[in-house]
Amino acid sequence: MSMKHNFSAGPSILPQEAIDASIEGIKNFAGTGLSVLEVSHRGKEFVSVVEDTQATIKSLMNIPEGYDILFLGGGASLQFLMVAYNLLETKAAYLKTGVWAANAVKEAKHLGLVEVVASSEDTNYNYIPKDYIIPTDADYFHCTSNNTIYGSQMQSFPNSPVTMVCDMSSDILSRQVDVSKFGLIYAGAQKNMGPAGVTVVIVRKDILGKVSRKIPSMLDYKLHIEKETMFNTPPVFPIFAMLQNLKWVQKVGGVNEMQKRAAARAELLYNEIDNNPLFSGTIAKEDRSQMNACFVLNDASLEEKFNAAWKEAGISGIKGHRSAGGYRASIYNALPLESVEALVNVMRTFN
Amino acid sequence: MSMKHNFSAGPSILPQEAIDASIEGIKNFAGTGLSVLEVSHRGKEFVSVVEDTQATIKSLMNIPEGYDILFLGGGASLQFLMVAYNLLETKAAYLKTGVWAANAVKEAKHLGLVEVVASSEDTNYNYIPKDYIIPTDADYFHCTSNNTIYGSQMQSFPNSPVTMVCDMSSDILSRQVDVSKFGLIYAGAQKNMGPAGVTVVIVRKDILGKVSRKIPSMLDYKLHIEKETMFNTPPVFPIFAMLQNLKWVQKVGGVNEMQKRAAARAELLYNEIDNNPLFSGTIAKEDRSQMNACFVLNDASLEEKFNAAWKEAGISGIKGHRSAGGYRASIYNALPLESVEALVNVMRTFN
Repeated sequence: MSMKHNFSAGPSILPQEAIDASIEGIKNFAGTGLSVLEVSHRGKEFVSVVEDTQATIKSLMNIPEGYDILFLGGGASLQFLMVAYNLLETKAAYLKTGVWAANAVKEAKHLGLVEVVASSEDTNYNYIPKDYIIPTDADYFHCTSNNTIYGSQMQSFPNSPVTMVCDMSSDILSRQVDVSKFGLIYAGAQKNMGPAGVTVVIVRKDILGKVSRKIPSMLDYKLHIEKETMFNTPPVFPIFAMLQNLKWVQKVGGVNEMQKRAAARAELLYNEIDNNPLFSGTIAKEDRSQMNACFVLNDASLEEKFNAAWKEAGISGIKGHRSAGGYRASIYNALPLESVEALVNVMRTFN
Repeated sequence: MSMKHNFSAGPSILPQEAIDASIEGIKNFAGTGLSVLEVSHRGKEFVSVVEDTQATIKSLMNIPEGYDILFLGGGASLQFLMVAYNLLETKAAYLKTGVWAANAVKEAKHLGLVEVVASSEDTNYNYIPKDYIIPTDADYFHCTSNNTIYGSQMQSFPNSPVTMVCDMSSDILSRQVDVSKFGLIYAGAQKNMGPAGVTVVIVRKDILGKVSRKIPSMLDYKLHIEKETMFNTPPVFPIFAMLQNLKWVQKVGGVNEMQKRAAARAELLYNEIDNNPLFSGTIAKEDRSQMNACFVLNDASLEEKFNAAWKEAGISGIKGHRSAGGYRASIYNALPLESVEALVNVMRTFN
């Protein structure tokens, strides 16, 4: 049967309206008679898509003056490197809360000294460390707002004494964030922003240009800003499709509404995990993610039966990440509450 | 009016069949009931797309054993850097035949010594230098097979005494190439391969692992090969759409047929440029590109009239690049001969 309930961790569910609008652009882009797949990125129609996407993000996230918005290729993994290339002169501070945070640490080490201010690695990243001190002599502090793989989420951000940089790939646009606290925010699009193939970078210009090394062009935020995010051919369609999704977010009520919906989905699912004796959550309750709910079956011998039941219900994508095991229901912005209801219903009745 | 004849230099025209198949995948991907925009890149359906795309490129280009095929983000501009990161230990040799070749030189200089073996820069890149010697102590020799901006093309490749690396972004799949002559070939997809957002890298494994520097993960070809081009989330839709285009190439007769069609388009257009007293070609005849035909109006005062005439005929994208001026008709694989006929007709009759 075809899947109706898409719990994929990313690339993940998009609203049907955004999908339909993306198809329209492939058929006839902005009245040009051409497909958005075959137009110049420097034509006025696509330049206007880029500007519209920037303006919509700015408005949705309430981004203050002084920030630029870039749309880059290479994924958040390339940002692990670019952040360090552009900002790490001597030492950087990192909070190590999961696999992606650890990868960010690894890439930064190519460029300088990394101080891990706290880590939950020895308990398989099942909580977010809170008692840590950010050194005042660090060039910046890097954190990961939401851990897609383990399902933990920073419920608040520290008052960092140095520039704060955040990988928000898996929870951007799902809750109100005070952007002014951050020097740089980045996010692979393929969760709440749009399809895979583009990464959004929100950067406060005044933090750039302070390292002494020469930065290769493609890794240089300043150059991308000067070229208005068109230093080279950008990922045209992923940006176009992202805009269609952002318009949907805006139309249904913006980030406030996304936050309400996320809370409703998470409450329903975690209540079931907590109250159903067959299941257990894997993450400290106070650090649970509203985007990725990780849980296990207490009796592993029921797995086959449970797997058959959710598949039968048209559910897809709840197998845990290969590094974490168990189950992970990713409940991103575009997932309707009824999909969570369908999953909860299976959890209640399959045995 | 809507454009019917798409001469865009890239992103550029795609066959309608590939566009239609891309839309089908957005509606329902491989029978999953989900859109290709919202499926996991690690699901078996998309893994099979990646493998099919690799196999199709291998077959179309007759790639021998020992080569791997990667699909990366960041565009050919990121390859300028990656090539040097992975291959440049001491010195590399570059042929400087245009803007992109010059950019490749610039990025390589971040990693070591660059010897430009020949350049046509002082005549605004209007020919391809031929009498040059590739130093035998270079780590590799880098060339650009086709210069999109100026419309020149290497008609043959040297017998390089060292590993040959080639940027084939704008003429890949348009003619038979002996891949075994090259250690590495790369191409931004957005001309003959597919839509923007993915870059194809064809690399012979045995040239890797020879530099002493530590390579950051996202810039490391070896790591991308080990991870079967899924080190991180790849640009899912651009790869899917590229496969639809490759299937079209295969169906209509492969690279042989593409080469015949390219020759027919180029002959028709260059004949008109040469025989029409109103126009002149800008590139040495023996070096003319079969993908990008650059020309000027001999009498600049006719420009407005000419521009109105081709627009009226439903032609788009023939304005020259901002660094070159004049006109440039990009006549890629998917452009029907009738589009060239339409342009030639305007050139003959507009005055």
